[in-house]
Amino acid sequence: MTKNREQLHLNLFPMGVGHHEAAWRHPVSTPARILDPRYYHELAQLAERGLFDSIFFGDILALGHRIKHNVHTVLEPITLLSSISAVTERVGLIGTASTTFNLPYNLARMFASLDHLSSGRAGWNIVTSSADPLEAQNFGLEVNVDHAERYEVATEFVDVVVGLWNSWEPDALVMDKASGVFADPAKVRSLDHQGKHFRVRGPLNVPRSPQGSPLLVQAGSSPAGRTLAASRAHAIFTAQQSMEESREFRLDIHRRAAAFGRRPAEVTILPGLVPIVAPTVAEAQELVRELNELIVVDYALAQLSVQLEVDLIGSELDAKVPPLPDVEHVRGNRSRFVMLRDLIEAERPTVRELITRIGGLRGHGVVVGTPQMIADHMHTWFEEGAADGFNLLGALQPTIVESFVKEVVPLLQDRGIFRTEYATSTLRGHYGADSSARQAVRG
Amino acid sequence: MTKNREQLHLNLFPMGVGHHEAAWRHPVSTPARILDPRYYHELAQLAERGLFDSIFFGDILALGHRIKHNVHTVLEPITLLSSISAVTERVGLIGTASTTFNLPYNLARMFASLDHLSSGRAGWNIVTSSADPLEAQNFGLEVNVDHAERYEVATEFVDVVVGLWNSWEPDALVMDKASGVFADPAKVRSLDHQGKHFRVRGPLNVPRSPQGSPLLVQAGSSPAGRTLAASRAHAIFTAQQSMEESREFRLDIHRRAAAFGRRPAEVTILPGLVPIVAPTVAEAQELVRELNELIVVDYALAQLSVQLEVDLIGSELDAKVPPLPDVEHVRGNRSRFVMLRDLIEAERPTVRELITRIGGLRGHGVVVGTPQMIADHMHTWFEEGAADGFNLLGALQPTIVESFVKEVVPLLQDRGIFRTEYATSTLRGHYGADSSARQAVRG
Repeated sequence: MTKNREQLHLNLFPMGVGHHEAAWRHPVSTPARILDPRYYHELAQLAERGLFDSIFFGDILALGHRIKHNVHTVLEPITLLSSISAVTERVGLIGTASTTFNLPYNLARMFASLDHLSSGRAGWNIVTSSADPLEAQNFGLEVNVDHAERYEVATEFVDVVVGLWNSWEPDALVMDKASGVFADPAKVRSLDHQGKHFRVRGPLNVPRSPQGSPLLVQAGSSPAGRTLAASRAHAIFTAQQSMEESREFRLDIHRRAAAFGRRPAEVTILPGLVPIVAPTVAEAQELVRELNELIVVDYALAQLSVQLEVDLIGSELDAKVPPLPDVEHVRGNRSRFVMLRDLIEAERPTVRELITRIGGLRGHGVVVGTPQMIADHMHTWFEEGAADGFNLLGALQPTIVESFVKEVVPLLQDRGIFRTEYATSTLRGHYGADSSARQAVRG
Repeated sequence: MTKNREQLHLNLFPMGVGHHEAAWRHPVSTPARILDPRYYHELAQLAERGLFDSIFFGDILALGHRIKHNVHTVLEPITLLSSISAVTERVGLIGTASTTFNLPYNLARMFASLDHLSSGRAGWNIVTSSADPLEAQNFGLEVNVDHAERYEVATEFVDVVVGLWNSWEPDALVMDKASGVFADPAKVRSLDHQGKHFRVRGPLNVPRSPQGSPLLVQAGSSPAGRTLAASRAHAIFTAQQSMEESREFRLDIHRRAAAFGRRPAEVTILPGLVPIVAPTVAEAQELVRELNELIVVDYALAQLSVQLEVDLIGSELDAKVPPLPDVEHVRGNRSRFVMLRDLIEAERPTVRELITRIGGLRGHGVVVGTPQMIADHMHTWFEEGAADGFNLLGALQPTIVESFVKEVVPLLQDRGIFRTEYATSTLRGHYGADSSARQAVRG
């Protein structure tokens, strides 16, 4: 099937008990559930009831310094998604894994195995890990390798993994009891990869998975990240503050994809969206106020200091945000830095205003209002070419996700821009990126 | 709880559709099910109905050369066990993972995450990978490091992983909404490991799991393997041909454990057992004959050539097995080699006799007969101190496993040597290796 531009795509991105950094302190939250597998099962089943394309778990390979006031990533994504695969039927299962701190053979089989366990619903969000030495120091390095090399390694890593996934032809398993032939060795090939960063013989020891190649997702917005995404990814998560910027981002990805001989329809662009949805605008605003009041200022300042690479600890809260470093000197997540920098330049907030403006939501687009207003926002961005769908972040989980599924999804369906049932059974199918479509495009 | 020596322990070790190399060709087999998660769910639920302590999946990090006639390991164990965790309640979940071709921080979190997902049922079977270059070449090496160094690396690797598991104190998560304190940083410690082979800062980014430290399992029978097992493992899988040898093995482990200040009760020794169970001896023997007739001789010769490190391809089938290399020159699995060598020296089989004698069952103890005979065998080994329980291999799955659970388990229960219900909820609890017991032993 080809991508249907009349329908938008939805990914659910849960984190902790909500993306707002004070979500766990809200009266409706049960923070201890972050260690309960049933909590994640219920979130995934909720996404499936809402006919979402996928559910996605982010990851970082270190415990941050600031655990005193929040810890949001507590389970490893691939094991978590494997567990979820057993209690869901259709929703796609996307996990983050690093190309800097994994071995490609192992990662290829983890995702191939997940793809079998889920009957074709596995997806890999490719990250290169941050420059923060916290991660590197868990893997024998003092600091991470620099940005350019990380992406060079990532590109080779992805190609090795995809090569391994393709090392079994679809009909390699014969299983003919009469002749005693289990597999046809001629249909299983070594990879014999000898690159700059990796040497991997192959073939993979997992037979070809239902999707063949699981879905590839990317979220880096730096030039190197965009190139990796445009050349190889099927879906892109991105943080965009305005419709105009998001449209420009989407066009940029399309231009880059074209340079690799790919068509725009091969890449689904999903800006982050934080819907603060309530029956009335006043109630939605009240929820935001409640959450912001629960922010621990010291924690917010520490988070912002890392994101902006400026020391804000002990800042005068009513002073303007101090000058930021030049982007070339940023060692961490550059796309988030640029987005926050642009927001600060546009709005000139005080430190206190910035804290509540961001609220631990890391600069994703926030819409506060009624179900109708949320649906209007999504519809407009979709129609105006600023998005192919959305990466949905619940500020407060599961509460807001439940409201979204119950109140907003039917509005999108009424407008004919969202599916009323799953039309396909695989994750690539949901995103219109199934192998046959790609072959048709290229043939 | 302390270990109850009046009760034996059972682990189920599934492989493909049965451990007999021709199981997949048997009329009752459905070999395509090896890629179906529900097949594994059903096997685990069967083990749980049988009140087994655990289910275990082996692993190898390469596809063998001999896929034409059989492929038995097709899914990655940790993802598979994570899936199983969602559809079982009590049975323990043990997965093999290599200390040679993994990164300790990643592996520590995979098992910690599985332990959360399963509410305390995770176990790690520690392997060092074989000397076969097939595995090494998937990880950038031409050949694996030698046997002694592999075990030196393994010992450091295990200590890093256990150190990471213990980096969170049990009460580190505070989650106090009123004060805004999520975790107590004073109760989460860095590891700051700087060893010969690894540098890992820590702490782990997974809060302390239900078991604290998941169960450690070992299966190497070389001196280095026995030392690693005796010093650190809670359970040992071993292949033993005779009760006398198994008793000697068990005593050797007890002696070695004592040298590390451990008590015998801290290590559960589980010889492999292949029960060919049927209502009558004649029916059981007929099943063995059926399976052996389906062996593809070329495949069996290729397998034996690897295991014995002697080229048997094209051998005269009715000639005696040729001389074997000296054990010091064996590059692969030495404990299996020694077991096969001793069997060949004792029985002096022809090549053909050896093929059916082994039958792809890799030298584990085979008992062919009625449920009563299987139970007698197990009871005797247990009473005579040759085993603390058994690692059960189904020659034909699920058929023989179903028969075992239905016909043999009740006999063991009637004799008072096997549980009639789960008394504990964690894997360490099942094996009498829970942390409180160990602390009591050492206190």
